[in-house]
Amino acid sequence: MEKDVRVIEVKRSIFEDNNKDADRLRAELKEKGVFLLNLMSSPGSGKTTTLLALAKALEGRVKMGVMEADIDSAVDAETMLEHGVKSIQIHTGGMCHLDADMTRQGLYEFGMDDAELIVLENVGNLVCPAEFDTGAVKNMTILSVPEGDDKPQKYPLMYETCDLLVINKMDVLPYFDFDKANVEKYARLRNPNIDILYISAKTGEGIDALADWIVKEVKNWSK
Amino acid sequence: MEKDVRVIEVKRSIFEDNNKDADRLRAELKEKGVFLLNLMSSPGSGKTTTLLALAKALEGRVKMGVMEADIDSAVDAETMLEHGVKSIQIHTGGMCHLDADMTRQGLYEFGMDDAELIVLENVGNLVCPAEFDTGAVKNMTILSVPEGDDKPQKYPLMYETCDLLVINKMDVLPYFDFDKANVEKYARLRNPNIDILYISAKTGEGIDALADWIVKEVKNWSK
Repeated sequence: MEKDVRVIEVKRSIFEDNNKDADRLRAELKEKGVFLLNLMSSPGSGKTTTLLALAKALEGRVKMGVMEADIDSAVDAETMLEHGVKSIQIHTGGMCHLDADMTRQGLYEFGMDDAELIVLENVGNLVCPAEFDTGAVKNMTILSVPEGDDKPQKYPLMYETCDLLVINKMDVLPYFDFDKANVEKYARLRNPNIDILYISAKTGEGIDALADWIVKEVKNWSK
Repeated sequence: MEKDVRVIEVKRSIFEDNNKDADRLRAELKEKGVFLLNLMSSPGSGKTTTLLALAKALEGRVKMGVMEADIDSAVDAETMLEHGVKSIQIHTGGMCHLDADMTRQGLYEFGMDDAELIVLENVGNLVCPAEFDTGAVKNMTILSVPEGDDKPQKYPLMYETCDLLVINKMDVLPYFDFDKANVEKYARLRNPNIDILYISAKTGEGIDALADWIVKEVKNWSK
């Protein structure tokens, strides 16, 4: 299967000012009417499974494509393709994050002409991806129940930079010490405006509400 | 509680060659008979809970102290102190990893004179910490069942640099799609010599075997 996946090896950015470059990329996305969503989380919080569930929920509403960014392997892009979701694999050459120009290289390769929503599945990491504006219109982070409710205390920048916090793996809540009130308190301490949704990508719980959130943002952007 | 925790703000290393500096630090540890264990994992895989279980299992066998490294907060060091484990909190100033000199600053502050085993709980991150030799005698990584069995494929360097892979949260194995054969296959593909142990820090399953592994290494080092 791996041979069917398009793998892009992106190069380190030549731009010194990533923030300015990210603004340039956002302006280009606005002009083309493409909504770029930057999805960040720890490894194993369920980014790929959530995107598969979302692709189904968005069918007939918004056309979604996915750029999978990883240090190595193409397993996520393979999974997307197997489920009929347009996808490419971005390799970061060992880097722990993507900046705006690396994201641009991915977008150009992915193709923006008939795209409506492109999700960048960033490298699984709560630290570095939060430090680099990718040029995305919105930032979303997934925190899964088994990771614990204290993550917004330990990785504050991630929660400060995100518009949406999705709590995943709600189906296993009974087996973990995870307090919804705590995570909401800690996250809103970092970012009073953050939206919070609860889902289980496995059972489908909450996926429609997540799809609604995204559709609303995509429509706002393409107005 | 926070006021009781000693928090060290470590500075970026002045040494250009971290590998050489790490060797220097290891030589110093050898001379002093101190075993430094570098513990790495994703956020939320259970590093702190595992160390608490270990502290109990090691009582009367090896004297353990912990250096907690985080971007922010002192919750992990507070937890250690509450359980009677000697501990300091290292703040990395936003950095996603520790290098050898940052580790040295922590060790000097912690005090090595009556130390036997010092565990460095690295920043929760599967990418950057694996790239920097901290000067530790051994490297250990925890992968928790909810994160999935494919992590060694996606974060190869972490598994290449570790001597021991501990699979945690075995108590929730029935609720997740996690294949022990897969994770062993993927991890050994990256590192044929890696030791693999299965534990549940919550129930105590496998903690004695983990304690045995550590005691053996500490005794070897102090010979």
